[in-house]
Amino acid sequence: MADLAQLFAARAGRMRASEIRELLKLLDQPDIISFAGGIPDPALFPTAAFAEAYGALLCGQQAAAALQYAPSEGHAPLRDWIAARLAADGIACDRDNILVTSGSQQALDYLGKLFLSPGGSVLVARPTYLGALQALNAYEPAYQTLTPDGGNTTPQRFRAAAAAAGGRAKLAYVTPDFANPTGHTLDRAGRRRLLDLAETLDLAVVEDTAYRALRYDGAPVASLLALELAGGRTLETARTIQCGSFSKTLSPGLRLGWICAAKPVVRQLVLMKQAADLHTPTINQMAMHHVAERLFDDQVATLRDAYRARRDAMLDALARHMPAGVEWTRPEGGMFVWLALPAGLDAARLLERAVAEARVAFVPGRAFHADGGGADTLRLSFSCADPAAIETGIARLGRLIAGRAG
Amino acid sequence: MADLAQLFAARAGRMRASEIRELLKLLDQPDIISFAGGIPDPALFPTAAFAEAYGALLCGQQAAAALQYAPSEGHAPLRDWIAARLAADGIACDRDNILVTSGSQQALDYLGKLFLSPGGSVLVARPTYLGALQALNAYEPAYQTLTPDGGNTTPQRFRAAAAAAGGRAKLAYVTPDFANPTGHTLDRAGRRRLLDLAETLDLAVVEDTAYRALRYDGAPVASLLALELAGGRTLETARTIQCGSFSKTLSPGLRLGWICAAKPVVRQLVLMKQAADLHTPTINQMAMHHVAERLFDDQVATLRDAYRARRDAMLDALARHMPAGVEWTRPEGGMFVWLALPAGLDAARLLERAVAEARVAFVPGRAFHADGGGADTLRLSFSCADPAAIETGIARLGRLIAGRAG
Repeated sequence: MADLAQLFAARAGRMRASEIRELLKLLDQPDIISFAGGIPDPALFPTAAFAEAYGALLCGQQAAAALQYAPSEGHAPLRDWIAARLAADGIACDRDNILVTSGSQQALDYLGKLFLSPGGSVLVARPTYLGALQALNAYEPAYQTLTPDGGNTTPQRFRAAAAAAGGRAKLAYVTPDFANPTGHTLDRAGRRRLLDLAETLDLAVVEDTAYRALRYDGAPVASLLALELAGGRTLETARTIQCGSFSKTLSPGLRLGWICAAKPVVRQLVLMKQAADLHTPTINQMAMHHVAERLFDDQVATLRDAYRARRDAMLDALARHMPAGVEWTRPEGGMFVWLALPAGLDAARLLERAVAEARVAFVPGRAFHADGGGADTLRLSFSCADPAAIETGIARLGRLIAGRAG
Repeated sequence: MADLAQLFAARAGRMRASEIRELLKLLDQPDIISFAGGIPDPALFPTAAFAEAYGALLCGQQAAAALQYAPSEGHAPLRDWIAARLAADGIACDRDNILVTSGSQQALDYLGKLFLSPGGSVLVARPTYLGALQALNAYEPAYQTLTPDGGNTTPQRFRAAAAAAGGRAKLAYVTPDFANPTGHTLDRAGRRRLLDLAETLDLAVVEDTAYRALRYDGAPVASLLALELAGGRTLETARTIQCGSFSKTLSPGLRLGWICAAKPVVRQLVLMKQAADLHTPTINQMAMHHVAERLFDDQVATLRDAYRARRDAMLDALARHMPAGVEWTRPEGGMFVWLALPAGLDAARLLERAVAEARVAFVPGRAFHADGGGADTLRLSFSCADPAAIETGIARLGRLIAGRAG
C-alpha cells in the first residue's frame, strides 16, 4: 500500500487514466471503505429488466437482426428514443442528428479525430475529466484552462496562447452538470459566457452530459446546446455538440453513448465509425432500447433517491468530521465531492496513511491536473458506499486530517 | 436500378466501403437473387445458444460484472479460450498475447494507428479487402501491390516505390485463407516468400484470419504466424500480428474480434483502446465465451456443410452456364468466387442489365481496386443463397453474359 501512495505521489500530474484505474484496483479490498472509484453502484443495475430484454429479443422476430451486421449510425429505434429525450430537454432534433457510439469515450475520441490536428488548442476546466484528456491526447492538442465561472482570461489571451503553442483554439470540452471530478455545475450565466467565448474564438463546444440525469436537488439548468438553440440557432448551425451516455443510468458495461450534432457532422462521424469498428453491437442497442423505453424514468428516480441519500450522508459527515481549513464542494447531483486540504497537506501522502491506518481510500487530486498542480486536493465518490459506511469513512478521514493538520 | 449501376460505373475505384454497402442495400429486394452481400447467412446463427447464454449470465452471479465497467484488454476467460484455440493452430500464446477488439475492423484501425504515419507504405494484394483499406486509409499510407504467389516485384522495387511516396514500407496486410473478394488461398511456399520479404523490408505483417475456420476441402495451410513460429521465432519476436473474428462463425452483430501479438504490442494496444472506447462490451464477451465453449466446433461444422454445398452449387452452375472466355476462382473455403469476364465486358454495366433483366446481383470488381482497375471482374458471394437459387441465378447470369459476349 505504501507503493500505491508513492506511485500517486511520484507520478501525479503525469498519470494516465489507465494507471489510475490500475491503482484503484489495488484499493478494492473488502475492509477498505472506498470513495475512490467513480463508477455506478452495480447493486442498482436494472439486471432483471436486461435479462427480460435479451430474452425477448433473442426469442422474437428481431433475433437474426440482433446478431447480424447493422448500419454504423446505430439502431434506428434507439436513435429515435434518444432524439425524443433530447427534444424534451430543449433540443429539437431527429434520428439523423444522433450517432450511437460505444460509450461516450468513443464519442470523445471521434470528436478529437474530427476537430483536432497537432498544435490545435483545447480549452478545458482545471481539473477536468481524465478520460476526456486521454481521448483527446491522441490528437496532440495543447490545453488551456477554461474559467467560465469568471476569471480574467480574455479571448485575446486564449488566442495568443494558442498561437504560441503553434496552432489555434479549436475546441472547448466541458461537463456543465456535476462534473467529474469536482461535482461542479456551471450556472446559466456561466454557460452563456462560455457560448459567447466559443463564438468569439470560433470554437466547437463538446458538452458532456454524462451525469445530467442525476440531479438530486435544485432546478435544472438548460444544457449548453439547449441554450444555444434557445438563442436562435438551429441544431444545424449550432457550435455545441452534445455527448451523452447510458453508463451512469442503465449500464456502463453495454458501452452505449451517443453524439447529438448537426447532420453533416453526424455523416462525417458515421464514415469514421465505419472505418473504425463498423457499428456498435446491435444486440446491446436493441436491449438498451427495450429497457430504456420501459423504465428509464423509474431507474433514474431510483438512482436519484439512492445517490441523494449518499451525497447527503457525505456532506453531513464532512460537516461534522472535517477540521477547520478543509473545504469541499456541495454538488447538486452526480457522484463526486471535491475536497481541498489545509495548506501544506499533500493528498497523495494522506492517501498512504488513510489506507494504512484508517482503511479509507480516495483519489488524490493531482491525478486530475495535467499541469501537476492540485497536490492539496482530492476526489471523494459517494456512489458506491452506503450512508453508514460513508459516516464511518469520513469520520476516520477527518480524524486523520485533524491529526496531520493539528 | 439504372442509377445503381451508373453509380458503380462512375465511382468504381473511388468508392468507399460505405457507399458500396449503401448500394448493396438497394439490391436487397425479395425477387432479386443476390450474390452481392458478403455476410453470413443469418438463418445459420446459433440464436438459441445466444438466448441461453444471455439468460444464464444475467440471472447468475456474473450479472453485475456483465453490466459494469471492465478491463480494456477483454474478458479473461474469453482471452483464454482464444489463446487455447490459437495454440491448437500452431501459435503458442497466452492470455496476455490477446486483446479483444470490437470486431476485426477495430483491430485493423488500431494496427494502422500503431504502425502507420503519413507517407508510410502498406503492401496489399490487388484486389484486397475493402474494409482493411478503409481502416488503414485514416493513417494516409501509400499502397503497393503484393504478389506473394510470384510476380517480379523485388524488395529493391518496394523500397524505391516507398521512398518515392515519401516514406518507407511499414506493413503488409494479407488474408491468406479464402480472401475477400477473390476466395484465393496463399500456399505454404507463398507464405514463406511473404515472410522472407517482410524480413528483408523489416515489415510488420497483419494476418487477417476472418475466414480461416471455413475450409470446405483441401488440407489446411499453416497460418503466417504459425509458420513464423515454426521457423524459430517466439511470439514475442515475431513480425506477424494475427487478427481474428467471431463474425463469420458465431455472430457479426456482437462485434467481437481479437488481436494476437507480442505482449508489448498488446500493452500498447490496450492503452489505445482505453483512450478510444474503454473496453468492448463485457456482456457480449461473456455470452460469446459461453457459446464458443459449448458449440464452436459444432457450429463451424454446420457452416462448413451448408457453405460447402453452396460453393459446390455455384462452381457447378458456373461450369454449366458460363460461356467461353469467362474465368473464375475455385475457393477451398470462405464465401466468395471471383469472376473475370471476357475482354471488353464491363461488370458495372453488366450489373445494370443483370438487375433489370435477370434479377441477379453481384459486386463489380472495380470497387475492390484502389487504382480503378478490374472493370472486367466481379465478386460472387455464395453464403446467403440456397443451392437452387444459386443454380437459377448463375444460369440467368450466364445467359446474359453469353448474349453480351456473343
